[in-house]
Amino acid sequence: MQNIRRVVDSEFNAVNDFIIDQLHSRVALVENIGHYIIEAGGKRLRPLLALLSAQLIDDRCDQNHIKLAAVIEFIHTATLLHDDVVDISELRRGRPTANANWGNAPSVLVGDFLYSRAFQILVEIGNMPLMGLLSDTTNTIAEGEVLQLTRAGQAETDEQTYFDVIRSKTAVLFAAACAGSAILSNKLDAQQALYDYGMNLGIAFQLVDDILDYEGDPAETGKNIGDDLAEGKPTLPLIYVLQNGSEEEKAIIRQAISDKSAERLPEILDIVQRTGALDYCRQQAEQYSALAEQALAAMPENEAKTQMLRLCEIALGRKN
Amino acid sequence: MQNIRRVVDSEFNAVNDFIIDQLHSRVALVENIGHYIIEAGGKRLRPLLALLSAQLIDDRCDQNHIKLAAVIEFIHTATLLHDDVVDISELRRGRPTANANWGNAPSVLVGDFLYSRAFQILVEIGNMPLMGLLSDTTNTIAEGEVLQLTRAGQAETDEQTYFDVIRSKTAVLFAAACAGSAILSNKLDAQQALYDYGMNLGIAFQLVDDILDYEGDPAETGKNIGDDLAEGKPTLPLIYVLQNGSEEEKAIIRQAISDKSAERLPEILDIVQRTGALDYCRQQAEQYSALAEQALAAMPENEAKTQMLRLCEIALGRKN
Repeated sequence: MQNIRRVVDSEFNAVNDFIIDQLHSRVALVENIGHYIIEAGGKRLRPLLALLSAQLIDDRCDQNHIKLAAVIEFIHTATLLHDDVVDISELRRGRPTANANWGNAPSVLVGDFLYSRAFQILVEIGNMPLMGLLSDTTNTIAEGEVLQLTRAGQAETDEQTYFDVIRSKTAVLFAAACAGSAILSNKLDAQQALYDYGMNLGIAFQLVDDILDYEGDPAETGKNIGDDLAEGKPTLPLIYVLQNGSEEEKAIIRQAISDKSAERLPEILDIVQRTGALDYCRQQAEQYSALAEQALAAMPENEAKTQMLRLCEIALGRKN
Repeated sequence: MQNIRRVVDSEFNAVNDFIIDQLHSRVALVENIGHYIIEAGGKRLRPLLALLSAQLIDDRCDQNHIKLAAVIEFIHTATLLHDDVVDISELRRGRPTANANWGNAPSVLVGDFLYSRAFQILVEIGNMPLMGLLSDTTNTIAEGEVLQLTRAGQAETDEQTYFDVIRSKTAVLFAAACAGSAILSNKLDAQQALYDYGMNLGIAFQLVDDILDYEGDPAETGKNIGDDLAEGKPTLPLIYVLQNGSEEEKAIIRQAISDKSAERLPEILDIVQRTGALDYCRQQAEQYSALAEQALAAMPENEAKTQMLRLCEIALGRKN
């Protein structure tokens, strides 16, 4: 990841500085929680995408791209805060979640603070089409999260619905990070290609995330294996078994989803392995990663593009 | 209230229609919760303020004012949804809250849906200064809610902090509803006066709300008396006693706040009555109501103004 950052190194640091600056609040708890979650050491993948996209199409990032990158990170962080309330997660990136530390209430409200701060920064940028993209994106994320919620415990969820959920809750923000930069650079012909790149990369990224919930090493991912299972989330590994497993395997998975129980996790880890469910998910991730690569085909050849193509590989191989 | 609406009757109906239209979502649960809370039969006071303000300064509301009114109601509704999560309220307007019905998670996410839908509508309107006003407002509301949260259980909260909280969590949205209309009508000279009107009216409104928590009739207010006490909220009636009561009275109040307990509610109702705390709060509400009236002094004389002045009276006399 550090190599990937190198091409926009000083801009990346400027984004981090700008983020810290924009966390300022006259209410101490807002700042504390804001810092806690922002500094949790995420990869800052989404803001990086905004910077790389600007560098790709225009060989430069200006101050507005830096602001956009911060906006993307703020929106992402707000969704994490709200998502943790929803999921009642206790660990994220290996640390207690904000809501485990402070309770649900501040997590909700500091999420609102970050959302609205993102829109305040967008007003500073003053680009209405960009504002449109980001308000649509935020709306879609909320819809996607609710859709996911309504599917929890529902073993009859199909693949199409699964992809609908991951597009909405995850991939649209990747897409907006990339396409938003094109809007700011006034390169409207590049907008769709960058949107497609971000969307497909985001889908690949979430597919790998959902695989890691069934094979990752908690020490490396900082996540609890089996979390999705315990929440009764019908993710693709399980959906595959429900379509292709033996009657017995199907019954075990169906029961675990509707009970929202990870009690039979070891057995289920074995099932998703031996039925080829994880292989299937990995193939899907590879396909979306390839689509992301293809989306950049007509883009200029430069160092930023090289790194964006490398991200398509990294998304597949990542361990967290 | 119906008389007040009369001057913008058709516009008010148009706002209701537009709101229903904009609740549309491909995710059924989003629509269900949206309708549930939007149709809970609130007074729609805030959107009404936007319409009356437009009518006051320009003798007309156009389509953008109607959209603004809906935006204001969406933001208000989103804060209610998030506030209910925060307060763990079970009753609002005499009905179970959304989170009592569906749980915390959908309340948070549908709140996010409404916030972002508000910004989508603002993008449609396409007025950047208005966007700035509303993103600032939303940010201030979130800060105010966190500030309120950090004061729960804190008996040493002073009057200044109390007013800071109610300005931020309640009155700024009243102010934005009124001033936003001036921005849309391009009557920038009226913007400050309308902002002041809304701010002071909002403060009076919240003061009365906080009084009703100690003297309202639950059958009329649809609220549970003593809710604020049970949450350990140091509102003005209690702050007054802590400044002016006997040592014994102070001790009782201090204990109730830090225990977040309404156990001694009957006694405390008696204390806020006999110490003159409620009288003091009512005087404060009257002062802010008078400031709201004064803010309109230089505004044109018309039917909308008459009704806006009447609202200053109604805010004081309301029972819910």
